[in-house]
Amino acid sequence: MTVQIAGVASTEFGEHPDSSTRELFTDAALEALADASLTPGDVDELYAGNFIGDLIDDQAHVGAMAADYLGARQAASMRTESACASASSAARSGAQAIMAGDADVALVGGVERMYAAGIQEVTDALANAADNEYENKAGLTFPGIYALMAQVYLDEFDVSQEDLAEVAVKNYENGVTNPLAQRQEETSVERVLDSPPVATPLNLGDCCPITDGASAAVLVSNSFTEEHGIETEVSFEGSGQSTDSLALQDRPDLARTRAAERAADQAYDSAGIAPEDVDVVELHDCFTIAEVLAVESLGFFERGEGVRGAVEGETAVNGRIPVNTSGGLLAKGHPVGATGVAQLVEITKQLEGRHPNQVDDSTIGLTHTVGGSGASCVVNVLRAGGE
Amino acid sequence: MTVQIAGVASTEFGEHPDSSTRELFTDAALEALADASLTPGDVDELYAGNFIGDLIDDQAHVGAMAADYLGARQAASMRTESACASASSAARSGAQAIMAGDADVALVGGVERMYAAGIQEVTDALANAADNEYENKAGLTFPGIYALMAQVYLDEFDVSQEDLAEVAVKNYENGVTNPLAQRQEETSVERVLDSPPVATPLNLGDCCPITDGASAAVLVSNSFTEEHGIETEVSFEGSGQSTDSLALQDRPDLARTRAAERAADQAYDSAGIAPEDVDVVELHDCFTIAEVLAVESLGFFERGEGVRGAVEGETAVNGRIPVNTSGGLLAKGHPVGATGVAQLVEITKQLEGRHPNQVDDSTIGLTHTVGGSGASCVVNVLRAGGE
Repeated sequence: MTVQIAGVASTEFGEHPDSSTRELFTDAALEALADASLTPGDVDELYAGNFIGDLIDDQAHVGAMAADYLGARQAASMRTESACASASSAARSGAQAIMAGDADVALVGGVERMYAAGIQEVTDALANAADNEYENKAGLTFPGIYALMAQVYLDEFDVSQEDLAEVAVKNYENGVTNPLAQRQEETSVERVLDSPPVATPLNLGDCCPITDGASAAVLVSNSFTEEHGIETEVSFEGSGQSTDSLALQDRPDLARTRAAERAADQAYDSAGIAPEDVDVVELHDCFTIAEVLAVESLGFFERGEGVRGAVEGETAVNGRIPVNTSGGLLAKGHPVGATGVAQLVEITKQLEGRHPNQVDDSTIGLTHTVGGSGASCVVNVLRAGGE
Repeated sequence: MTVQIAGVASTEFGEHPDSSTRELFTDAALEALADASLTPGDVDELYAGNFIGDLIDDQAHVGAMAADYLGARQAASMRTESACASASSAARSGAQAIMAGDADVALVGGVERMYAAGIQEVTDALANAADNEYENKAGLTFPGIYALMAQVYLDEFDVSQEDLAEVAVKNYENGVTNPLAQRQEETSVERVLDSPPVATPLNLGDCCPITDGASAAVLVSNSFTEEHGIETEVSFEGSGQSTDSLALQDRPDLARTRAAERAADQAYDSAGIAPEDVDVVELHDCFTIAEVLAVESLGFFERGEGVRGAVEGETAVNGRIPVNTSGGLLAKGHPVGATGVAQLVEITKQLEGRHPNQVDDSTIGLTHTVGGSGASCVVNVLRAGGE
């Protein structure tokens, strides 16, 4: 059983000093509703991904805030939180509410406002996604966590820092032509290698920025499209979500993301497809190493081979399996609570044939979103050809 | 379409200085799974309500933490947050995941650990449920918010502080015989009136305590019960959830909770029942005034008449419509992120005929859980007679 994607929108990603969290969310939500030819009064359920709004802005209860400010008080509203995968959980929950028969129209989205708090406070807040007992209290923050994973990966396979840098080069190149991307400039392997070290082997050029932004999508039931004469071009076709140990110390292999492997298997099963059926992918490249691990977990490359995607052009816009044609988290930006739906927005535009880095003949697209160091992972599958 | 409740459990509510959040959640979850004759490996989806764990304990990503520590890494896991209604959102989402066909077994629960942080830090954290722009920044915290609502109610109707105190007297009396309740002692109208003023017209005796605790329930699909020969006695029959303005200032009448009215209507519709069909109720009495507003929103009393429930015994265990036979939030306690599922645990025990304050011949029960001052409300309906 499927649900339809009737409209999508993202704000520009970057710095929004004059917009509050509720304003950013509403901007994206109203644009997505307009794209669907619907209004706030049509929304039955609203799921808002948000990760650190309470920590840095003293505002939890973000679902109600979003529905209230949008003018959708009639809706059931809820905040979903799976760390940086919060918005993908929102999308999955919205689809389930429709499939359960509780809603015809679900507005799913996410928002994060990170710039105003500054890098130190944001880094501390993001560390809430790690295991407080065993990681935060020991001083570990996310660049360090992913550096540990990268170190193990580089030790285990014949891969270099130069190879990892190629991921940033590819994604920055894609960002140049995405008008919503935070970084619309190219980079180079040399520039990444010469950028300040953050946590060896990751330099600043291997890390995504902090970002303000919001994204939203309007999911509707098949019967609603028929009754209201709405034509959709893309359907939400399947989904998988799984868990891994919260702390790195409990994982047998740091160069492998098990939750992503399980989520991918589930998503492929639920959509009735295999990895080779996928035409275009938005995945969670919060650090260059994260993209390499992701393309392996998703079954596009054998273990130890993932970096070939960027190095040999297999994941380029015109490659075998285009990955992060939006610029990814590295160039498009990573407003953590919004990212999963931002990926869904990009894939929807690809499957509708209106993406700035259009992939020819793309029918099946996939989003992959990670919470923390991989303790959560959500994989959602979209298909061109709606109702 | 319904789902079945195969097992339920709550920890004791009160002070748990030696238990971490993950330990509390796991205690409740393992007991609920044992009650269902299932194991952590059987769980397909896990929804954990938690409101202020990140704010006072530096730990977000509570869904993954809970699944990990429980030994359910295979599960999809997510934190739901609707302020103090977080766990009821978890229950609703778990039921939807099953009804959508994505899960056969959903573990839904919630946890909060409040004592260790102390009353000042907890009060500040809870204020995240209000509107930060228009309420928190002006210094308003929840006792003040509910006092404003109470003041309007007392002005509008022929109701006194003595009448409100009767709500506490009833719920404390019920708590005496609930072995899991935080306060197992009687109180009196005099004692409530003589207790220190918190925010006029509410005294300390009108306010629920802060509480450590966790609750969990195992929801299963009808087909799973058939395939595995599981006998259930209670089904999750319907649900409603709605939103109101986050800030009090945007409501036309502070003596009325519109989100609860809409959620109740939806829940009654989805379960195919009317208010007069309900036999037993657990509702959100965070303050005495909250119970009065709730029984009116749920359609058990006309506006301005709600206080009759406690004053004239209509909401007593042997009354016309028994309310908070557990002791309610006032006496049982209110670990905010757990409360909605704690209510579901109590109603399930009532419908299974194993409640310490058993209501005779109860077939239909209802939970009502409020986020903030009523910006969120979830109403879930249960029915005796499973599969």
